[in-house]
Amino acid sequence: MNRPDLYPSRCGAAPGITERLDPVVYARDWLRGPLNQSQVSAYDRDGFLLLENFFSAAEIAEFVLELERLRHDPQVRASEATITERSSQAVRSIFRVHEDSPVFTTLARDERLIDIARFLLDDEVYIHQSRLNYKPGFRGKEFYWHSDFETWHVEDGMPRMRALSMSITLTDNHSCNGPLLLIPGSHRHFVICAGETPAQHFKSSLKKQEYGVPDDASLTRLVEQGGIVEATGKAGSLIIFDCNAMHGSNGNITPFPRSNAFFVYNAVSNRVGNPFSGQAPRPGYICTRE
Amino acid sequence: MNRPDLYPSRCGAAPGITERLDPVVYARDWLRGPLNQSQVSAYDRDGFLLLENFFSAAEIAEFVLELERLRHDPQVRASEATITERSSQAVRSIFRVHEDSPVFTTLARDERLIDIARFLLDDEVYIHQSRLNYKPGFRGKEFYWHSDFETWHVEDGMPRMRALSMSITLTDNHSCNGPLLLIPGSHRHFVICAGETPAQHFKSSLKKQEYGVPDDASLTRLVEQGGIVEATGKAGSLIIFDCNAMHGSNGNITPFPRSNAFFVYNAVSNRVGNPFSGQAPRPGYICTRE
Repeated sequence: MNRPDLYPSRCGAAPGITERLDPVVYARDWLRGPLNQSQVSAYDRDGFLLLENFFSAAEIAEFVLELERLRHDPQVRASEATITERSSQAVRSIFRVHEDSPVFTTLARDERLIDIARFLLDDEVYIHQSRLNYKPGFRGKEFYWHSDFETWHVEDGMPRMRALSMSITLTDNHSCNGPLLLIPGSHRHFVICAGETPAQHFKSSLKKQEYGVPDDASLTRLVEQGGIVEATGKAGSLIIFDCNAMHGSNGNITPFPRSNAFFVYNAVSNRVGNPFSGQAPRPGYICTRE
Repeated sequence: MNRPDLYPSRCGAAPGITERLDPVVYARDWLRGPLNQSQVSAYDRDGFLLLENFFSAAEIAEFVLELERLRHDPQVRASEATITERSSQAVRSIFRVHEDSPVFTTLARDERLIDIARFLLDDEVYIHQSRLNYKPGFRGKEFYWHSDFETWHVEDGMPRMRALSMSITLTDNHSCNGPLLLIPGSHRHFVICAGETPAQHFKSSLKKQEYGVPDDASLTRLVEQGGIVEATGKAGSLIIFDCNAMHGSNGNITPFPRSNAFFVYNAVSNRVGNPFSGQAPRPGYICTRE
């Protein structure tokens, strides 16, 4: 497969910043869609959009019930699609919930979400990845800064920046319990990461990222330009963010867990191919290929 | 030495909460002091007080210059009183700065600080401990929840709750760069910690606390009662907090370091004796004994 690599990273080159070569909002007519003009502009400019009270209390209650059921289900705990914390064996993430859980299968297909994804990407969409993230109280560890696209490109073979993530908050997100941190405007730059990708990197990277990590100087530049926004708010918020938005979160020593459901919609025209790393593809529970 | 142990902890008993047996504000006349009535009431009720703009920009600039000088001084780096991060060898804390740095010797004796300490403790005071805390950007690790008094009692032999800490912020404290977190009202309860104290515990505890750690149930109870307050604000704030206030801080993945100077004033009537753990005393750079 000889597709050109438009976003080379982890190729042994020095780390640094290049420009994005793809649109952010693919919709041709910003006035005809499920988002209003100022929401589309904000998404285009910042690379993300936080919509509070997107889901009703009753909907969130149902999602939380399912989240708790999955977390305590021995079969789910034993699944390769369930990732535990490095130190405590507490559940950190459960992948592929858009297939393995009836509740989250329905949510992944919710017309309110699909319409927004179709509009912003101007294409039919499919789920590239889904997961539940638990950030337990007291001992929740940080997620270091990263661009999801960098990983999906290098490790999954996603060719272009034509995908987005939707995070549905299942617990209140305070500034003190490790909320999602985003760097506005970072999505317009591609941070080339140092190093190369070892085989089977996914086995450790889902617990702690060691490759595909942006360098300090690039992060500093992005933050100087755009600052940092904390995605705080009540349970039931929808956070939509571009596949290349630089984000992360601090750890959480508070008693308040921080959980969310996370769906990645990719344009069908942007289906993944062979990983640009040259390694074998990651398993299906991390990256949909069919 | 047969002093009674009024606050037994790490004695093999189950973890749990007992009540404080000592006053918080020792001053007999709250109207005659360097703090106003509402400030004294807030300190008594919450166990801490945040005073913004306490130091001028010129003063802070001088402190920061000294902080940077110390951090890059090879002799200081090599000192036993300098603690590095577990993973990165970055400087985490420098102890005994009230003796080893002329600038911080002067600050520790600043009449504005001493007057408040004397007033709240109603006694002459001395420095029990001093340090500079660096929480570097990108890879700053959390400080887990703790009561300083629990450690000073068990490991240093401080008999009663008649000491307080003053933290002078040397960088801006945002909610996203791991600010000090405090549990209002926690100072009125003493959390008995499980386990015992190994010999030479200080060698690892200054990097990561493993003994004297409050249990989840007690922390949950304290937070349910009092919530969590983030001590955010511009550089130059003074945070005064009771020796038994439960506090901690999350890690810091942002590029913004978080630094402060930290002085502990103890009442001379409350001088430390033999550690209640039965272990040998900690070194002089952690606990003043002369």
